[in-house]
This record gives sequence, structure tokens and C-alpha cells, in this order.
Amino acid sequence: MNFLDGTEAGADGILTLAKRALELRAGATPTQHPGKRVAAVFLNPSLRTRTSMEAACGALGAQPLVITPGKDAWALELEDVVMDGDKAEHVREAAGVLSQFADVLAVRAFAGLVDAEEDRRDPMISAFAAHASVPVVNMESALWHPLQGLADTATWVNHLGDDLRGKKIVLTWAPHPRALPAAVPNQVLLSAALQGMDVTVAHPEGFELDPQIVARATSLAAAGGGGVSVRHDQDFGEAEVVVAKSWSGFSGYGRREAEAAHRAELGHWTVTPDKLPASAGFMHCLPVRRGVVVAPEVLDGPQSWVLEEAGNRLWTAMSLLEAMLAE
Amino acid sequence: MNFLDGTEAGADGILTLAKRALELRAGATPTQHPGKRVAAVFLNPSLRTRTSMEAACGALGAQPLVITPGKDAWALELEDVVMDGDKAEHVREAAGVLSQFADVLAVRAFAGLVDAEEDRRDPMISAFAAHASVPVVNMESALWHPLQGLADTATWVNHLGDDLRGKKIVLTWAPHPRALPAAVPNQVLLSAALQGMDVTVAHPEGFELDPQIVARATSLAAAGGGGVSVRHDQDFGEAEVVVAKSWSGFSGYGRREAEAAHRAELGHWTVTPDKLPASAGFMHCLPVRRGVVVAPEVLDGPQSWVLEEAGNRLWTAMSLLEAMLAE
Amino acid sequence: MNFLDGTEAGADGILTLAKRALELRAGATPTQHPGKRVAAVFLNPSLRTRTSMEAACGALGAQPLVITPGKDAWALELEDVVMDGDKAEHVREAAGVLSQFADVLAVRAFAGLVDAEEDRRDPMISAFAAHASVPVVNMESALWHPLQGLADTATWVNHLGDDLRGKKIVLTWAPHPRALPAAVPNQVLLSAALQGMDVTVAHPEGFELDPQIVARATSLAAAGGGGVSVRHDQDFGEAEVVVAKSWSGFSGYGRREAEAAHRAELGHWTVTPDKLPASAGFMHCLPVRRGVVVAPEVLDGPQSWVLEEAGNRLWTAMSLLEAMLAE
Repeated sequence: MNFLDGTEAGADGILTLAKRALELRAGATPTQHPGKRVAAVFLNPSLRTRTSMEAACGALGAQPLVITPGKDAWALELEDVVMDGDKAEHVREAAGVLSQFADVLAVRAFAGLVDAEEDRRDPMISAFAAHASVPVVNMESALWHPLQGLADTATWVNHLGDDLRGKKIVLTWAPHPRALPAAVPNQVLLSAALQGMDVTVAHPEGFELDPQIVARATSLAAAGGGGVSVRHDQDFGEAEVVVAKSWSGFSGYGRREAEAAHRAELGHWTVTPDKLPASAGFMHCLPVRRGVVVAPEVLDGPQSWVLEEAGNRLWTAMSLLEAMLAE
Repeated sequence: MNFLDGTEAGADGILTLAKRALELRAGATPTQHPGKRVAAVFLNPSLRTRTSMEAACGALGAQPLVITPGKDAWALELEDVVMDGDKAEHVREAAGVLSQFADVLAVRAFAGLVDAEEDRRDPMISAFAAHASVPVVNMESALWHPLQGLADTATWVNHLGDDLRGKKIVLTWAPHPRALPAAVPNQVLLSAALQGMDVTVAHPEGFELDPQIVARATSLAAAGGGGVSVRHDQDFGEAEVVVAKSWSGFSGYGRREAEAAHRAELGHWTVTPDKLPASAGFMHCLPVRRGVVVAPEVLDGPQSWVLEEAGNRLWTAMSLLEAMLAE
Repeated sequence: MNFLDGTEAGADGILTLAKRALELRAGATPTQHPGKRVAAVFLNPSLRTRTSMEAACGALGAQPLVITPGKDAWALELEDVVMDGDKAEHVREAAGVLSQFADVLAVRAFAGLVDAEEDRRDPMISAFAAHASVPVVNMESALWHPLQGLADTATWVNHLGDDLRGKKIVLTWAPHPRALPAAVPNQVLLSAALQGMDVTVAHPEGFELDPQIVARATSLAAAGGGGVSVRHDQDFGEAEVVVAKSWSGFSGYGRREAEAAHRAELGHWTVTPDKLPASAGFMHCLPVRRGVVVAPEVLDGPQSWVLEEAGNRLWTAMSLLEAMLAE
């Protein structure tokens, strides 16, 4: 089984992994997989993802192999071209070789944020999935971040119980000095929809998510007894969870400069204490810009689940790899 | 025992390591060496070499320590000079310290490709070998790549049996957008000669290997019942193995621009399906430029041993370290 | 217990750790701490420190997690600011997350060497110590290098016995092509003073250490039965140990160019054989500029303890982590 957007495991499978993660957090002993190896390829920087994957491997008695192409390995070519340019290695060989060296292949490759259609194809993770002969884990791609989605689900289960159907969650856009990919908000939307939650996406006009992804999440949520709605203000209503994240609007894709000007007028979208419902938990995937995305009073306050959410990255990486290495 | 060009182990020793690698590949349990450490110093990028060495250590219960001087460690001085320049650490201290931290010291340092006589001295690996007090493994130097040679030998043994004397192998030059070092072709030539194979080196005029190395391989092959010949076309005859690789001509050493112009006229040296004898396996050390060095039809075709060859990097690293850590 | 300048362990605690390191070096089996993790954050390059910490973890059955912010992780913000600049992650979150992933958090962050008052606050290590919820180890900060101090103490104990009170040690300034931080000389001074040694700091006028640190060391040495004196020549008297190191003068802090001109006239401060008392051991923390800081005849001669000192980095890292992971 690949783990490319998290839906491969199904709603129940994700719940099982989330609950197992909470057991491991509570002290359960992970199943040991000595002699197994996980190759983790990083095309982009990472603190939580790399560290949690390495630590999860260690806890399972498996060995992590970290590769950073273009830095300590070769730059990768994805296309079927005559390779007379800068890229020294084709993903066919990289995936084919690493599949012989490891039992699971994990890849991190952000969106280019230039060409929407190219990012929609999610080229790097798709190429590894196409050419690997072992299961592939997405450690954040142009479109998805299912390890984050699994950690978020474990956090929701911990606070809201393991029947998440109809629970109210708001995913809100927030300001940021740079234009950012939508992998995390896409994933929050998808993971919440998969569990049948009642999801509201709040963003300024012009910052909509990819309509194909919103449509997919809407039908997924409906099938689970929930729903997806969009609004253009930060009235969080009776939300039980508020997840903040900045992202680039899909319609303005690639027009980063125009968007930056637009964004400068949106400082009032910072999540401040007055906006947060009294009963809601506050989440963000980290790293977070203090004072820009969210006020320090929220981030450091009693309603913040942010550090727990990051901590759950370790326990969910462990529960996922425990299951994948047993295959 | 150092492992600097592979001949230290002798023809029989290399065969023993190659056959042990195939046993490990077939499921034999490697001898465990808990508490042992291998320090691996990378002056150049690596995918297969680093990953296979790390994985081999893990499989043996030993710990890999990866060091990349000039990036996450200090730049190294090799010469006996007053150190008032950019280099912060002398190889005497680096080798002396790492010899206390690890049981085997592995080093990767490519040719400078500017000064033939300097590269002939193989300065970095030679300096580590001179100053280390533990065995030193060459993970590709200016002149040699014996881990590749061992993996290639295991691949030959797997397909051709363990008496390689007189087996026909062609090492062919191939086009490439950049001027490349000769460590890999030197090693293929040396490793094949060590086993007494019948080696043909095929390259355009002006792209000859170092005549000292050809002479050494010729006498080594003769001693083993084989031979070395050179030709300037790609008639592969009845070759059982064709190994492709681009390299810089020794006589044009360092004149990269002139060579680039020359190379532009040699696109017809790409290995295409029509050139490959029906019985021959195709090999390349990777990374490979698709459509430049070799046609995709060959690389992805049934005669390609390329992925097996790369996979054998793991098993041969394991058999070599298994033996070295037992010393 | 944090380990920020080494004095947290007390004079007796440091001696206990140093003696345990010498036992481990002699073959004692380290206590195993399976399932424990040490996160090691490197803001600056390192050979000995990273490698010895990784190897020490491995020997203890613990897992090292190496993070290099700004390279394979995010650049860190330390101040309470609105984060609309280049830095993507605040140390609050980095320390908070890593405290959940690891049992000990180790940090390396050199002095900026621009603003003396800022470096005096030792901002990065202080920020991690403030925000971590697990013990923090200083792997060299703006002010201190207690792992080096512990390895030096083990080296002193090995040669001079475990009652170091009144033993004569000279810390001498030495030339260097670049202006360097004072963390190592500060630490040598502090570690020797903590053991009640008789410390002489020898340096040219204008290259004094931070007077606050000299005052602190003076009272610490006096309490232990030793003392601290300063001189402006290289008469090493009857020193039993001579430690060489270049550093930037505190009064000239940040005026690197002026200091470089000044330094050009101080080539005669190189440690040469004629200066070294016949009974004294020579020490340097490495990396060392041969022929600039010290003559090769001293560095490679029979009185040099330099490689032993570096080797002790492994055994002292092991004794320290063995104790910290048992907490």
C-alpha cells in the first residue's frame, strides 16, 4: 500500500492508525522490525518530518536512510527526455535502486508554485510511486501531506473522541510574508472530510483552494455524514477545532507578486484571541510565523494544540511505519 | 587491510567477497558486529555509495558515521604547508581523530580533472591511507572505485559463473554533456583484468585511458589468462558483457572546453540496441544520462543488468565490511 | 540537569564523568539506553563534536537525531518579534517539538563576533534552554564549549592524576588567519579553574578574554585552591600543560579588520619547540592550523596530547550522555 494522500487507508484505517499512535504515545511497545530499512528522500527542508521519520524508524528497530538529492546526492530528472542538461540521475533509476536498498521509500517534494497544471500532476511523488517496487510514503508533495493529516486526525481523536462525524472544524487562511503551497490546507480538508467532519474553509476572496480538490472533499465528506462549506470571513461559529494556514490562491497561481500586494491588505486575517471560540482547539502544522499567522496569545495559550499536534507526528509516523513494515 | 583499488584482496579474495554478497542477497544472515563503527567521509555527492554503505553497516549491527567536509565539517588540507589559507583542518588530524572514533574509515573524493599528475597521485585517499590507523576503504577516488568493481564482479559471477577467466567484456566510452573522471572505467578495466577476463576497451581516438593503468591491467590480465585490447569503434563482437561509461581522455586532461567541442561530434557513440550482441548483458554504474550514454530501449530492456548491478552495491558493501570488521 | 558550561555538574561531578570516560576508554561496557533519543542541532559545522555525539549515542543503544537548521531544516528566530522576515521557525516551537521527539537536546551555535553584549547573552543556547522541556547540552556556544572542557579534564586526569588542584596549566593565545570566537579559551579557563588548577592565561596586549569571565574563573579557582594570572609573553615557566588557541580580543570585539592587521605582527606567538617546557603536554582542541598556531614539530612530537584529547571527546560524550539518559 502506498500512502500518497492518506485515503488509501480508508476512513477506518486512518482511525485505527491514529488510535494506535495514541497507544504508542501512552507507552505501548512498538512491534520491532529489525533488518528493515526506510529510504527518505528530501527535495525540500524539514524539521518535524525528517526527525519524526528517523525517530519512528529507530523505535521500530528499523534503519532510516536519509537522502537529499542535489545536495548530498544527484539532482533528479523526471521527464522522458534526452538527459543532456543539469540533471544527472533519472527518477527511474533512483526509485529502482532505492527499492532494492529499502523496504519503504518516502519522498518530500514541494510544489513549484509556477504552473498549476504541473503541480496538479504532483510530478515528483507520482514519479517515485510509478517507478518504485516498494510502498511509497508522501512526506509532503505539491498537493498533499498525509503524515500531517494522520497526526492531525490523532489530535482530533484525542480531544473529540474517535467518532469524528459531524464535528465542526474550520480551516482558515492566514497572512504570511511569502506565497505558500496548498499541500497542508488540501490535506486538512481531505483528512477532515474523510472522517465525515463538518468542514468550513474560510479565506479571503481570491484565495480559494483548487476547486477539483474542494469538490473531491465535498463528496467524501457527504459520504461520511459531514459536509464542506466555504466562507470569506473569519466567523468561526461553534467550531471545535480551528486550523490556521497560509496558502496561495489557486486562481492566482504563480502570480506571486500580484498576490503579495493583495496579501498586504489582509493583515486582519491573523488569528487573534477574540476570534477563537471558547471551546475550540487551535492547530497549525508548524513552522508558524508568530504575530503574522497567529497572535502569540493564541499560540502559547491554553487552547493551543500546536505542540501536541507536532508531537503526534512522531507517534503517527511510528504507527504508520509499524503497519507498512509488517506488510 | 586497506581497500583502495580492490587488488589488495587478490583475485580469489574478490571472488570470495562477490560470492558471499550473492549469498547475503539470497538471504544469508550477515555476521553481527555490534559496537563497531564505520566513518564515511564524502567530499563529493553520492546516492548509491552512501546509502549502500549506511545500509550495510546497519545490517551488520555496526554504526555508520557520515561526514561531509566543507559542508557539515571543516575543509581539509592535504599538503605540508603553513595553513594560513581557507582550509581549517589537516588530513593528519582528521584521519587521526576518525581512526579513534571508528573501526573502518571510508573516503570519497573525485578527481580534480585539472592536473593529470596530481590526480595520478590520488591525493585525498592516499593522504587518508597514510594517516589513518584503521583500515581505509575507497568510496571512489580520482583513480579508482573498488566498491563498484566488487559489485560489478558479483554481477559477472551471477551471470557468467565464478570462473571469469577469458570471459569477453567490452568497456565502451559513451557521450556525456560533461567531461567526467576515469575512476569508474579504470576500475572496470582493473577488476576485469584481475579476474583474467578478455577485456576490450572501445573509445574514440583522443579518449584513451591513462596508459600506465592500461599497461598495469594488461599484465594483470595476462597473469590471469586473459588480455586487454583497445579499439576505436563500437564493434562489440561476441561480448558477454558491455559496460558503458563516459570519461575524459587522458591526453586531453584538463582541456575540458576543447574536449567538449570534440565530444559534440561523437553522439553516434551512444549505446543503441543494434550495437548490443544478442547474448550480452548491459551495465552502467549509474547515474546515467538516458538518451545520451545509452538508448532507453537498452537501459530498460531485458538485457540490462543495470538495476541488479546497483542493487549489488548493497550486498557487496555488506560482504566487504563483514570481512573488514572481523579483522 | 542542563550542561551549558559544565559547572552545573560541580568539580566533583566533572571528575566523576572524566574518570568514567577513562574507564569506558579502557573497555568498560556503557549502560544501554534503548529507546532513548538525542536531538543534536548544528547551526555551525563540526567534525569531532557531531561524530563523537553520534558515536556515543550508538554505543549507548540510543538514537542520534541530527538537525542542521537553515540547511536541511528551517532557519530559526530567537526574538519576540512579528515574524515577517526570513526566519521561518521560532526557537519556542523548535525546542518544544524536539523536546517531544528526544530525551536530550544538544545545540551548537557559534558567536556572531559582531556585538559583544549579544554574544555575552549566548542567545541561541539560552533560548533552547529556556524553551526545552528536556535537558540541554551545549555543543559549543558563543561563550562555552563544555564537552571540550570535559574531554580536556579527562586528558588532564589521565596524565596528572585525579587531584588537579594546583597543577600548572598555561592557556596561550596563538596566531590564526581569521578572528575566532573565545568559547574554547573561555572553557579551558573555566574547566581548569573549576578543578582548582593554577592557570596562566598568556596573550598579547589587546587580546584579553572577557574580564567578567576572567573574574568568574579567578574566584572559582581560588575556591578550589588554585588561581588565575595573566601575562603578555610566552614564558611558560614550569607548566605541566600548555593549551594553545587563537581568539579575538574582547576589547576589539567585532573590529575584525583592525585586529587582522594587529595579528599580522604576532607571528612570533606560534608555539614552537623551544617554548615548550620539557615536562609539559601540548593540547589544542582541533581543527588546528599547522605552522600558524603551532609548529608541526610540537604537534606531531612526543609531548603532543592533541590526538588523545580529541579521542577523549568520544569517551566523555559517552560518559556524559550515559549519566544524562539515566536521569
